[in-house]
Amino acid sequence: MTLAVQYTAARTLTTVSGSTSSPGPGEVEVAPAFVGICGTDLHIFHGDMDGRVDRPAVLGHEMSGRIVRVGPDVSGWQPGDTVTVVPLRWDDTCPACRAGHRHICQNLDFIGIDSPGAMQQRWIVPASTLVRLPAALPLDRAALVEPTAVAVHDVGRADVQEGEKVVVVGGGPVGVLIALVAASKAADVRVVELGAHRRKLAEELGLTAWDPAAVDVPALVQEWTHGAGADVAFEVSGAAAGVDTAVDVLRVRGRLCLVAIHARPREVNLHRFFWRELTLVGARLYSRSDFETAAGLVSEGTVPAHRLISKVVPMAEAASAFTALEGGGDVMKILVDCGEDNQEAHA
Amino acid sequence: MTLAVQYTAARTLTTVSGSTSSPGPGEVEVAPAFVGICGTDLHIFHGDMDGRVDRPAVLGHEMSGRIVRVGPDVSGWQPGDTVTVVPLRWDDTCPACRAGHRHICQNLDFIGIDSPGAMQQRWIVPASTLVRLPAALPLDRAALVEPTAVAVHDVGRADVQEGEKVVVVGGGPVGVLIALVAASKAADVRVVELGAHRRKLAEELGLTAWDPAAVDVPALVQEWTHGAGADVAFEVSGAAAGVDTAVDVLRVRGRLCLVAIHARPREVNLHRFFWRELTLVGARLYSRSDFETAAGLVSEGTVPAHRLISKVVPMAEAASAFTALEGGGDVMKILVDCGEDNQEAHA
Repeated sequence: MTLAVQYTAARTLTTVSGSTSSPGPGEVEVAPAFVGICGTDLHIFHGDMDGRVDRPAVLGHEMSGRIVRVGPDVSGWQPGDTVTVVPLRWDDTCPACRAGHRHICQNLDFIGIDSPGAMQQRWIVPASTLVRLPAALPLDRAALVEPTAVAVHDVGRADVQEGEKVVVVGGGPVGVLIALVAASKAADVRVVELGAHRRKLAEELGLTAWDPAAVDVPALVQEWTHGAGADVAFEVSGAAAGVDTAVDVLRVRGRLCLVAIHARPREVNLHRFFWRELTLVGARLYSRSDFETAAGLVSEGTVPAHRLISKVVPMAEAASAFTALEGGGDVMKILVDCGEDNQEAHA
Repeated sequence: MTLAVQYTAARTLTTVSGSTSSPGPGEVEVAPAFVGICGTDLHIFHGDMDGRVDRPAVLGHEMSGRIVRVGPDVSGWQPGDTVTVVPLRWDDTCPACRAGHRHICQNLDFIGIDSPGAMQQRWIVPASTLVRLPAALPLDRAALVEPTAVAVHDVGRADVQEGEKVVVVGGGPVGVLIALVAASKAADVRVVELGAHRRKLAEELGLTAWDPAAVDVPALVQEWTHGAGADVAFEVSGAAAGVDTAVDVLRVRGRLCLVAIHARPREVNLHRFFWRELTLVGARLYSRSDFETAAGLVSEGTVPAHRLISKVVPMAEAASAFTALEGGGDVMKILVDCGEDNQEAHA
């Protein structure tokens, strides 16, 4: 019998036990070790995505784990290998796939939202989704490879170059990871974040963080860039004011990379896009190569993933972890520990 | 004594006569032949830009003419040469200029708005702004080189490629010119335009035009592109609904080129930018090379400029031409004839 955390209805997570099935052809059975909780998981927990999510649902797509069993027709993988998963299944036939953009397939199956995720002790996934982890990488840190892959993808979409001045609006986990990845490319980065706890963490990681409630961010950027404006801004806040800030700080021909989900249309100063010939690029998810780059950055410590982990909880405490994250400010990343021997330890 | 059309106050243009000065070092004196009226001129006429425009002001920046006198330290130009003017003076010291984006200098002097324009019989401009016109090009058509340069710049900013499917939202002069320039690159173009007269002209020019009040444009684009969406959209309407249409028609990784001036912030479906990884690029004005390309397109007839000229009026009728343009639908481009021998002929 193995445990799984199930989302059954708004604000309700239940830990249930069940039996496992065997991996089919091309599949592997993984024992998830640690599973991170992300903003999309929170949206599901709130009930906002009940139209998309079949219940009961097992959430979780930021994970690390070990292979337990390998199905038929799978080569190159062995029980015991440490892995993470690119949680995407594309159809390979839609126009987006045919144009080479499979990660944003028009009929994408996002594993952990559209099909069962990692918050369980046994998980069957296609072998094609596996990414090998360096043997020395602790599995708690490895659970941050997925959000780091998001950051790698975003920094790539914005085409950040050495020496460029970059403003990251929003200093949650993804914002801080974007800042760290951009800094690893020798960009000069500022993080704009309302939360004192998150600003403090960013500063401890060697970043400079500004409080938009206390300073005039566009004026500071003008001063910092000697009247030019920033080369790149990332909108990671999801707030209307964040969009304005990201637009206002940019130089002539600056690039705004839109990372956050804005469920509602936002008022955008299009005149400034015209006047300064700005560019806006949307960025969503990642490719396999982003994952591989991210695994390297986490493994070598360029991205100090362990510093972003606020807390690790056993499966039975997943619901309270979701609730803690709703509070926002004082926590960054919370991991759910799915290890078979660790369910009592935390409780 | 020479005539000039002066903007003195909202909705007031006066034709005055005055004496001319001599071209200084590096300057030439031009006799404007034809001057087109553009949307920005209309904004000034409405009084919307009185904060920026010193009155009395001579408007006009879409022009053709002949050199009359050449000042000291000017080489390569002779009286009688037919020319148009790139109406931009940059400071060469601001961050935008230093980064190579002089056409959108942070302290740009736009000739015809910030300093005296072409709607007069003698006009002194820096020789550095001159663009030579092919000798065989009729000067009325040559007055459309400037808006064609806008279109060349926009199509370049959107990076339109052969075979791409392009939607131009707004079928006024600039929209039609963008459509023609894109078509000259073997793109497959659709124009979206509410005005029946403008749609008819677009169709006569070999373009396909859709009425957004009569058809569901995004649905038609879906059908046209077999479910993919358009590669590129140009927003040239300046309307909130135009922005929505331009966003809604795009394929995964499609590009929206923002050409129109939106004086107020617009609600934009940012979620779709995220979800489809769309790109928005602002496009403003042009470079000298855009002008040179445009002069070639007009001269060889690829852009049939004469078909866009609805009317030519003498200087004394400039005010009524502005009023006719406010009506919109039934006119495209109106030229003011500044020729010394032509003021009675029209009157």
